[in-house]
Amino acid sequence: MPISPLNKDTLAFIQAKIDNKTKPLGSLGALEPLALQLALITEQRRKTNSNIDGDSSDDDSINQISIKNPAMLVFAGDHGINEEGVSIAPSAVTKQMVLNFLHGGAAINCFCQSNDIALTVIDCGILQSIAHDELPLSHDEEASEVELVEQRLGAGTDNFSEIPAMSINQVEQGFEYAKQQIKAKVEQGVELLLLGEMGIANTSSAAALMSALTSWSVVDCVGRGTGITDEQLDRKIALIEKAMQRVNVSGSENTSLTHKEVLTLLAELGGFEIVQMVSAILSAASLSIPVVIDGFIVTVAALVAQRLNKNVTNYLVFSHVSQEKAHQALLEELMAAQTYSDISSQALLSLGLRLGEGTGAALSLPLIKASASFYNNMASFESAGVTV
Amino acid sequence: MPISPLNKDTLAFIQAKIDNKTKPLGSLGALEPLALQLALITEQRRKTNSNIDGDSSDDDSINQISIKNPAMLVFAGDHGINEEGVSIAPSAVTKQMVLNFLHGGAAINCFCQSNDIALTVIDCGILQSIAHDELPLSHDEEASEVELVEQRLGAGTDNFSEIPAMSINQVEQGFEYAKQQIKAKVEQGVELLLLGEMGIANTSSAAALMSALTSWSVVDCVGRGTGITDEQLDRKIALIEKAMQRVNVSGSENTSLTHKEVLTLLAELGGFEIVQMVSAILSAASLSIPVVIDGFIVTVAALVAQRLNKNVTNYLVFSHVSQEKAHQALLEELMAAQTYSDISSQALLSLGLRLGEGTGAALSLPLIKASASFYNNMASFESAGVTV
Repeated sequence: MPISPLNKDTLAFIQAKIDNKTKPLGSLGALEPLALQLALITEQRRKTNSNIDGDSSDDDSINQISIKNPAMLVFAGDHGINEEGVSIAPSAVTKQMVLNFLHGGAAINCFCQSNDIALTVIDCGILQSIAHDELPLSHDEEASEVELVEQRLGAGTDNFSEIPAMSINQVEQGFEYAKQQIKAKVEQGVELLLLGEMGIANTSSAAALMSALTSWSVVDCVGRGTGITDEQLDRKIALIEKAMQRVNVSGSENTSLTHKEVLTLLAELGGFEIVQMVSAILSAASLSIPVVIDGFIVTVAALVAQRLNKNVTNYLVFSHVSQEKAHQALLEELMAAQTYSDISSQALLSLGLRLGEGTGAALSLPLIKASASFYNNMASFESAGVTV
Repeated sequence: MPISPLNKDTLAFIQAKIDNKTKPLGSLGALEPLALQLALITEQRRKTNSNIDGDSSDDDSINQISIKNPAMLVFAGDHGINEEGVSIAPSAVTKQMVLNFLHGGAAINCFCQSNDIALTVIDCGILQSIAHDELPLSHDEEASEVELVEQRLGAGTDNFSEIPAMSINQVEQGFEYAKQQIKAKVEQGVELLLLGEMGIANTSSAAALMSALTSWSVVDCVGRGTGITDEQLDRKIALIEKAMQRVNVSGSENTSLTHKEVLTLLAELGGFEIVQMVSAILSAASLSIPVVIDGFIVTVAALVAQRLNKNVTNYLVFSHVSQEKAHQALLEELMAAQTYSDISSQALLSLGLRLGEGTGAALSLPLIKASASFYNNMASFESAGVTV
């Protein structure tokens, strides 16, 4: 999937449009580079589409940001390593929370509803699939708004502290599933993708991948997830270090891994939901759709995607900094890799969230819409007759 | 106007409700103490209303947060001190921006529209009032949504570096105007108030008031506003220090001023929009309506209100930390004065905004709604069958 670098030829035009809005220069803070990014991505998408459709190019193409029909995809999967007790909860809770999503009772339901986001839950391989009689009744209005998609790669991964989490075939199947899913969403008119996840113990998998793909030690990548004890934390670290020895990544020369090596690491250390999110991110970027990144787990998926294709970072919007300690470091690395502008970007929210599910991404959507709104609708000094 | 302290008897009940939602304890970060605050305020309002109406108390009264019909009031005024060149812009820009608000072209229009907030602009005393033929035509759909209210206290204040900005009579008239305006809004069904302001040079007035009402020096209270030069900054500081000598406040023993002394300071150093915002904040709190505070100027109005009635702080929601350097310090002082909970609160956004107009308050509304939504709608562990 080729991902276009953003076309910097129009950057000066877009920046001038932002600077001529009726406000002091730069006074909308982080919303200004965000508008620039969204305008560049929208232009890229229109250019790609007009090439495909053979349409003549539209003169207004760089004048309006378009992020219609935002869609939240929550990827769920279970993790074999949880048999070692690395989380506060048993793996059965993953399915219980998926059912909670489907019945409309979770935080992500509230935030998708209050921010007008369509919610899809993707079973990437939780322990037990959802049975028909566990689904909400169709006359339950609120719950029926949530779509369930089955893209199962298995009944939970294997315990990666002992053996590979999954096979390369499973990784490839997961990539294909997510690619088709994103393609379908975009064909339905989705212009902005938001990602979330659910999977008891998936911070262990994410921390292992982060350590394997950066120069950060396991200790620096591991946090308390949703709130484990000191003892559990020590155990989590020891288990991940054991896995690191098995896969033989030293944490030093690992920023120049080959495509195949990255896929192998994903099979060794990944989770079914993480694999599918990596592909979703790459697929969305290849279709010039901006992707709103949630907390630590989704950010690690973005890191893996970036190791597979450097152009992907310019399509990422970082919604929030969580309390997971490695998250800030990871965000800094990924934001530094964004090349669409010299203005450094920042995560939009810093609310001390540590829930996952896509909650941070959903909460950031109104800021993303506000950014598009000021770019599309604010008057210029000239049109408003303001003489600053 | 008496302001009720919040009823802490129900705090444990509300906190337990938050803690039983299907999420790890505290994992929604800053949204959790916000939900607690909004639930306490809603309960206070229902109790007050049922006393007034003689209704029997509703058993569900502490089960749902209600923040219907959010209203943004943008208070505009001009400042005599601008003749000294303390701002990047001439005072005429205040009116130009008010017209921009009325015609729908400013940032605050975009953010009110994208977040479904009714917008009212209040002329508290800009240099020249708005003439009938300057108003948008009534068939201009977008612009006609903005309400203009005239509550003029004069044609700009006097230059407070030389003489008092206004008389005590003007302060009292401003208090009465804003009180009646808030009363009318609440009677129309407004359950959440958001405040913004427009007034070239009003950071000078705000900095002077902050220095006079805290132990902070003028230098520490003065910032660059929307972006003045070093030279202008030095001049701004010198002018405010001159005013401080005139009003004879030393910046030391000024946290225990009498009611009359505070009103006198407001007359000496204030602005027409600041005076009316102080009263709006007190009036809303007296009606148990939460007030969303914007940037530096509105936060100084909140400080003045707090000096007049200590109970007001529990009704304040701090929307953002701006780039104005004194703003963070001021927020810390006001948040420390909040007593509804031991959990320290934080400003919701930190986006590097420095525009005013109420933009930060408007941008924070979706987070406030999300907080109410999770409190009102999320399932409990028991109801969702989640076994953590």
